[in-house]
Amino acid sequence: MSKFDVVTFGETMIRLSPPGHGRLEAVDTLDFRTGGSESNTAIALARLGRQVAWWSKLPNNPLGRKIATQVGRWGVDTSHVIWTPHGRAGVYFIELGVMPRRHEVYYDRADSAASTLSPSEVDWSHLEQARHLHLTGITSALSAGCAASVARAAQEARAKGLSVSFDTNYRRKLWPPGQAKSVISSVLPSVNLLFCPRDDADIVFGVKGTSARIARHLQQTFGVPAVVVTGSPDGVAAVDGERDLHSRNIRAMEVDRIGSGDAGNAGIIHGFLDGDLATGLRYGSAMAALKLTVPGDELIVTKQEIEAVMNCAAGGVQR
Amino acid sequence: MSKFDVVTFGETMIRLSPPGHGRLEAVDTLDFRTGGSESNTAIALARLGRQVAWWSKLPNNPLGRKIATQVGRWGVDTSHVIWTPHGRAGVYFIELGVMPRRHEVYYDRADSAASTLSPSEVDWSHLEQARHLHLTGITSALSAGCAASVARAAQEARAKGLSVSFDTNYRRKLWPPGQAKSVISSVLPSVNLLFCPRDDADIVFGVKGTSARIARHLQQTFGVPAVVVTGSPDGVAAVDGERDLHSRNIRAMEVDRIGSGDAGNAGIIHGFLDGDLATGLRYGSAMAALKLTVPGDELIVTKQEIEAVMNCAAGGVQR
Amino acid sequence: MSKFDVVTFGETMIRLSPPGHGRLEAVDTLDFRTGGSESNTAIALARLGRQVAWWSKLPNNPLGRKIATQVGRWGVDTSHVIWTPHGRAGVYFIELGVMPRRHEVYYDRADSAASTLSPSEVDWSHLEQARHLHLTGITSALSAGCAASVARAAQEARAKGLSVSFDTNYRRKLWPPGQAKSVISSVLPSVNLLFCPRDDADIVFGVKGTSARIARHLQQTFGVPAVVVTGSPDGVAAVDGERDLHSRNIRAMEVDRIGSGDAGNAGIIHGFLDGDLATGLRYGSAMAALKLTVPGDELIVTKQEIEAVMNCAAGGVQR
Amino acid sequence: MSKFDVVTFGETMIRLSPPGHGRLEAVDTLDFRTGGSESNTAIALARLGRQVAWWSKLPNNPLGRKIATQVGRWGVDTSHVIWTPHGRAGVYFIELGVMPRRHEVYYDRADSAASTLSPSEVDWSHLEQARHLHLTGITSALSAGCAASVARAAQEARAKGLSVSFDTNYRRKLWPPGQAKSVISSVLPSVNLLFCPRDDADIVFGVKGTSARIARHLQQTFGVPAVVVTGSPDGVAAVDGERDLHSRNIRAMEVDRIGSGDAGNAGIIHGFLDGDLATGLRYGSAMAALKLTVPGDELIVTKQEIEAVMNCAAGGVQR
Amino acid sequence: MSKFDVVTFGETMIRLSPPGHGRLEAVDTLDFRTGGSESNTAIALARLGRQVAWWSKLPNNPLGRKIATQVGRWGVDTSHVIWTPHGRAGVYFIELGVMPRRHEVYYDRADSAASTLSPSEVDWSHLEQARHLHLTGITSALSAGCAASVARAAQEARAKGLSVSFDTNYRRKLWPPGQAKSVISSVLPSVNLLFCPRDDADIVFGVKGTSARIARHLQQTFGVPAVVVTGSPDGVAAVDGERDLHSRNIRAMEVDRIGSGDAGNAGIIHGFLDGDLATGLRYGSAMAALKLTVPGDELIVTKQEIEAVMNCAAGGVQR
Amino acid sequence: MSKFDVVTFGETMIRLSPPGHGRLEAVDTLDFRTGGSESNTAIALARLGRQVAWWSKLPNNPLGRKIATQVGRWGVDTSHVIWTPHGRAGVYFIELGVMPRRHEVYYDRADSAASTLSPSEVDWSHLEQARHLHLTGITSALSAGCAASVARAAQEARAKGLSVSFDTNYRRKLWPPGQAKSVISSVLPSVNLLFCPRDDADIVFGVKGTSARIARHLQQTFGVPAVVVTGSPDGVAAVDGERDLHSRNIRAMEVDRIGSGDAGNAGIIHGFLDGDLATGLRYGSAMAALKLTVPGDELIVTKQEIEAVMNCAAGGVQR
Repeated sequence: MSKFDVVTFGETMIRLSPPGHGRLEAVDTLDFRTGGSESNTAIALARLGRQVAWWSKLPNNPLGRKIATQVGRWGVDTSHVIWTPHGRAGVYFIELGVMPRRHEVYYDRADSAASTLSPSEVDWSHLEQARHLHLTGITSALSAGCAASVARAAQEARAKGLSVSFDTNYRRKLWPPGQAKSVISSVLPSVNLLFCPRDDADIVFGVKGTSARIARHLQQTFGVPAVVVTGSPDGVAAVDGERDLHSRNIRAMEVDRIGSGDAGNAGIIHGFLDGDLATGLRYGSAMAALKLTVPGDELIVTKQEIEAVMNCAAGGVQR
Repeated sequence: MSKFDVVTFGETMIRLSPPGHGRLEAVDTLDFRTGGSESNTAIALARLGRQVAWWSKLPNNPLGRKIATQVGRWGVDTSHVIWTPHGRAGVYFIELGVMPRRHEVYYDRADSAASTLSPSEVDWSHLEQARHLHLTGITSALSAGCAASVARAAQEARAKGLSVSFDTNYRRKLWPPGQAKSVISSVLPSVNLLFCPRDDADIVFGVKGTSARIARHLQQTFGVPAVVVTGSPDGVAAVDGERDLHSRNIRAMEVDRIGSGDAGNAGIIHGFLDGDLATGLRYGSAMAALKLTVPGDELIVTKQEIEAVMNCAAGGVQR
Repeated sequence: MSKFDVVTFGETMIRLSPPGHGRLEAVDTLDFRTGGSESNTAIALARLGRQVAWWSKLPNNPLGRKIATQVGRWGVDTSHVIWTPHGRAGVYFIELGVMPRRHEVYYDRADSAASTLSPSEVDWSHLEQARHLHLTGITSALSAGCAASVARAAQEARAKGLSVSFDTNYRRKLWPPGQAKSVISSVLPSVNLLFCPRDDADIVFGVKGTSARIARHLQQTFGVPAVVVTGSPDGVAAVDGERDLHSRNIRAMEVDRIGSGDAGNAGIIHGFLDGDLATGLRYGSAMAALKLTVPGDELIVTKQEIEAVMNCAAGGVQR
Repeated sequence: MSKFDVVTFGETMIRLSPPGHGRLEAVDTLDFRTGGSESNTAIALARLGRQVAWWSKLPNNPLGRKIATQVGRWGVDTSHVIWTPHGRAGVYFIELGVMPRRHEVYYDRADSAASTLSPSEVDWSHLEQARHLHLTGITSALSAGCAASVARAAQEARAKGLSVSFDTNYRRKLWPPGQAKSVISSVLPSVNLLFCPRDDADIVFGVKGTSARIARHLQQTFGVPAVVVTGSPDGVAAVDGERDLHSRNIRAMEVDRIGSGDAGNAGIIHGFLDGDLATGLRYGSAMAALKLTVPGDELIVTKQEIEAVMNCAAGGVQR
Repeated sequence: MSKFDVVTFGETMIRLSPPGHGRLEAVDTLDFRTGGSESNTAIALARLGRQVAWWSKLPNNPLGRKIATQVGRWGVDTSHVIWTPHGRAGVYFIELGVMPRRHEVYYDRADSAASTLSPSEVDWSHLEQARHLHLTGITSALSAGCAASVARAAQEARAKGLSVSFDTNYRRKLWPPGQAKSVISSVLPSVNLLFCPRDDADIVFGVKGTSARIARHLQQTFGVPAVVVTGSPDGVAAVDGERDLHSRNIRAMEVDRIGSGDAGNAGIIHGFLDGDLATGLRYGSAMAALKLTVPGDELIVTKQEIEAVMNCAAGGVQR
Repeated sequence: MSKFDVVTFGETMIRLSPPGHGRLEAVDTLDFRTGGSESNTAIALARLGRQVAWWSKLPNNPLGRKIATQVGRWGVDTSHVIWTPHGRAGVYFIELGVMPRRHEVYYDRADSAASTLSPSEVDWSHLEQARHLHLTGITSALSAGCAASVARAAQEARAKGLSVSFDTNYRRKLWPPGQAKSVISSVLPSVNLLFCPRDDADIVFGVKGTSARIARHLQQTFGVPAVVVTGSPDGVAAVDGERDLHSRNIRAMEVDRIGSGDAGNAGIIHGFLDGDLATGLRYGSAMAALKLTVPGDELIVTKQEIEAVMNCAAGGVQR
């Protein structure tokens, strides 16, 4: 039996944000958290009871240690993190806006330790301890070494019998669409489950239409067995082999939207691991909605709370 | 003339809650307040200018003293609190959710000093100073001694010429419905004014239907002259002898819903004391709505603010 | 070329408010900010890249210095502030309510240094450095000396070739409508651009009807070339010579509404300075909407953010 | 038997201070408390179990109500406060310095409701409910009406059989020494127990020397039976009829020194009420020392904690 | 090779304390942390690079989960925690005083899940994964089941070849000295390394004198090979077989003294594990001193910082 | 007459620090300030009433703007800041320790916009507006371009008739001693007033002995007319031409020591500008002491407060 249900890697950053809806120029304290797409998904999977490992490359200073302890705090194994005396911790600043003021994200992640990762410094045999590998395009975007590491990870995983999921997670502040398309396309042959936000489909792959059509199109183009298209107000559409699947978004009041997609992915992977992508979509919708209500990148809820939302038992005071 | 318009007793707890919409597992500071159904109602009545006394049994430690000073701070007489070197202060933790995440309440009130109350340690002659006694089913649920104290209080009050109000306030985490029904039913013969949330009517008494029907049904079943049914999105329905009364809910943005029912009760009792339950319902609706907008259990508003809401003069900035 | 695009003066106060939606009676910390209609407009104009000066009369103590440094911090010139060893800093307390609880403002500004201003202590020749003077009725309301200073400022400005804008900004806690009408009317002959909230038109001038009709009526009555009527749910209506202009309100979630009108005025003056009041109205609508989303009196946003809202590019996360 | 052991009156202000050792010009939140010499002493006496009443004249707004509820919260009767729709609440700003930076106090108390007090609006018959009246020179300094009220209060008290204590409490920001000497001297014939800080003895009465000599001198000059001289690093010296008394200061780490003298006075009055000024001095030294360790103006400790310090059982962790 | 250097178990509680030096009765927020003697020592050992496991019995609610995640966050293995749906999380309130005001601890730990532990529910075979077991008298004091579990743990450990350390850690609020003596004495035959504060030696065992004499006396009385006597202003004295050892206290400014003894123990155990108790004492002194400077129960420092203090390289700014 | 008394340039960073004495790994909010040696000195000079300009190269993002507005807020001219769309804002994290825990500074300033400064992008003619230029070795350490800019600035200043001061301000985390010696030595021929901490004299120049001897030695070696040696517990020693000067340190309780040297430099430059270095040393000692008592890098005090400390009028409460 595998030690870990899911293993993932990527860059988790220091997250600095003004309290409430304040502006960076005006406030004099900041909320001091951490977050990254892959660790967000890892933590959400751990809340569902999954055994999960996350690794990365971190600087051996208080900021690097903070990132590791924050991820480890929620029950995710961090024992394979690569520690380095060089480089810095990536940082992102975020201002949480409300309509019509947008959320503003300022990345300060150049030359981070994570971005210096190269495939040769990883002991790929650790993947044998796991059933599934989760990756995102953000990591591929960080550097050539990171892109190579993502590609190598996917190949190693498949060779060792793991299934592989991948979220395109396009970030225009990190790389241009053409480069994203080229790099991601080279990874997809090793991918079993592809997550693609609607906007990414358009910007990176030039694919438009209903989410269901996009899913089918990506499945055919890249030969990925299961494709999930997220980011539509109508909900999530998926194609799993021959089956078309759909899950509605659950209405939620937004406290902090960062990590909502990552939480949704966790729910979907949870179902995928049980061979039931349809149930996974339902978990995903509940988890993405719940994440909107929780401050920070991480989905700090219980499995019971998730299932209560799936079963519509929301609202009211429990006492 | 009576010294107090209203006297009430029950357990007021320490209330600990994460700031904003945080989770207990994740935050490192807590808002530190106090609250309890009876003292909440007492405070709201004091804001209306009523002379009110609240008593309870409290441990003689900083937490017990905090409870007494927080209630006393808002002008409620606490001179008859029974102090004990034994027992603890009841505590409740609450996480304020937003849709679809529920509010979660965690009671840590077992073996509280208040739950050790017995009728024999109370000097019931103090009731002679008051016109009206207010009770709730929460106190009855705490222990046999508390239940006996509630029953005794109701009898003593009626014997001394006070009117008595009672809110069923069913809490599933405290007792089963059958026990609640039995204990509450034995108190109702002494009650002049019964508050019953719609859900309680169903769960405790097995009564469904429109709020108006429920009110009428409870009036007939238990012989309580006035019955108020709360907790419906349509508003509050009441029956006062032969008259059917109704008050619409007032739309409000929710900051903190805890204590909204208690504040509404205060408004209704306020009218009841003046022999005008219809006006009481109007006060109650305004006060329940206003409570939703105020952090904490207590309704910290002025009588003018309440009456402004009753008279629809809401919205805008006063300057 | 002028050193300043806009110069303005008035009273900026210390602003004390409970965090969140707390009540003054209950909280034990206060947010400590500053704000005043004219400096709010000045700061918003500086965010658009305009060169702006604000002056006032301030006590030479930490509160007076705080007011000057807070205004100066956002790039507004404060070098002509008149410092006095006498008098106090005006203070206002504000409780931010949510429906149905109103915002409550408590002025504690009597005998402020600003209210002791008299025309004779001002060196009016400084106006020659500017293109435009902005005034409000709040300053006129503070004292006879202030009213005389406002009137004198308008005359001096016109004599020196500046254009003049004036916002009636009626405050019922400061003066009665009749006095406001009389004092304001005497200033209007020197005004090129009048801002009048719908409610002020009714209360002060007894003018009702659609905003467009009110604007036209005020233009004709007072001979002011351009009149802007604000404060309608339908948006802002203006008349500029022969042209009727209109700008819709932009939907926004309210974090802090104080200063929204002042921010809107800044946008309109920005257009007026370019001879394009229509574009000014569009800036104004975006700026008034954005101000609702920013804590405090001041509009701390970038010109790019304003223009993004004007161009409907709102919503979402930028990363 | 008297209802109150001690009654006192004076101005209690809103107290606003930067958190920690911040500067008003730099911080953006303020600690929001209340404090005044007489209510500080009243609260400290209530902590010792004394029945105490404090009254004042307060504006009927949230700040006035806050002052009353803050004093009442600690068990001091406030039922005789005179409420007025006019005037303002006095405010003081304080910056807590550390060596060599001084504490800086900025009074903003001109035209406070309390300063408009006149003897004619007081129902002096209430004094009959009490055994002892405590007064301070701060109140005398506020206005002619306040000075007259203090003088009248002392006379009424003596006529009704109460004993009277008075603390000179000279504040150079409120009145000049000559006026203080004249006004205070006229009250002293009615005083049984005089508190005089060493510095006040010098500045107001021109008396120098050891504290013991000063006490003796003031006793003889003004014919006050008991005189306590505070404010010396050597401790407190007193003369009680023929007896010379002395109490050493207790070493303490300073968290907040405001109210330390008021707390010390409470201990001394406590002993005086029992006819044991020597024990009172020991209470006073412990209470003055403990006040230094507690944030805010008020001495929030238990009688047991005070007596533990008197008995040298300080230090360590109790668990 | 063993998986863990040290394993320990005991009760870790929720820790609630007023910010700064505030009083529970007066503040309205609390710092929300966790702490317990054994987990404090475990965390300090993990900071030194030791592999450490801590287990306990915790309620499956947010407070129980918080305790586990806070301990796990610092790299301590918590996988053998026993989760139960019953019972509560122990809580302690602490007020941090400054001289002459004592720290006040209020335990609210009765009926905690941890206190219901019995030897039969533990899988003692897990001890085989470790080299050393650390215990304290606090756990023995909680209940008969806990005392039996401590005794059993010590026996099982020795039978499996582990060394055992034990800190008497007497708490007068938990049990009387006679009972402590009897229970602890029965455990000592299995103990290799005894920690005994000077005060405990006196109160529990009736042993006085210099720390060195006490250590020698306890060694002889109980046949424990190594005894460390802490809690003297002169420093720590120990006897290790025939050798007398001593380490001076390191002067420190106190930020939070809770857990200082636990941190010191960790340093001593660290040396003990390497067969070098003398070096352990030096680590212990540095760690106990550093703990005084860090808020909360846990010693959050690096090994480098500890060794810098051991090597006197303290003070100054590193930049 | 010159527009500015002093002009300075250098890198001002974002400063992030845990509240109180917390650790980065443990806290979840950070104090968010700015600071840099040159702007610290500029702000302190502005508090003395000097006209001061500071410039730098800043990224045009919220962090860059925050730095500019924080410096500008305290009355320092920032109109010559060079804005760039490239690069990042330098950041430093600081943990404020207490004995024996050191302050720990973590620089995250690589590739900052400021470090990309080159002499060719500066309009050196602006120096003509000033009387004096202040520089530090920190700026020289940032990059070759910065070192060249510092050297060029000193030459341009002297050519234009300004006097020049220079603080070696050696930072071992930025450059090795040999490089520092070489670069700094090449600037000194243009310097009129050299500040050199004792430790720098040893590490960079290999000069030891009393501060007075060091000052004399540096004066002779480098031909700098006036040399001030700081950083000794005995106080500051200086040589001004033929005169030996000395100023004792003023005892202070430390709240935040960062910027104390910069504040002291400001006082010394203030005297130097008046041709009275002796008085400058006295200002410097008072300002360095006061800075220790103020949170943040900046000396937010008044000239009166500084002079009160110079005149020993410290301690006590002013009211």
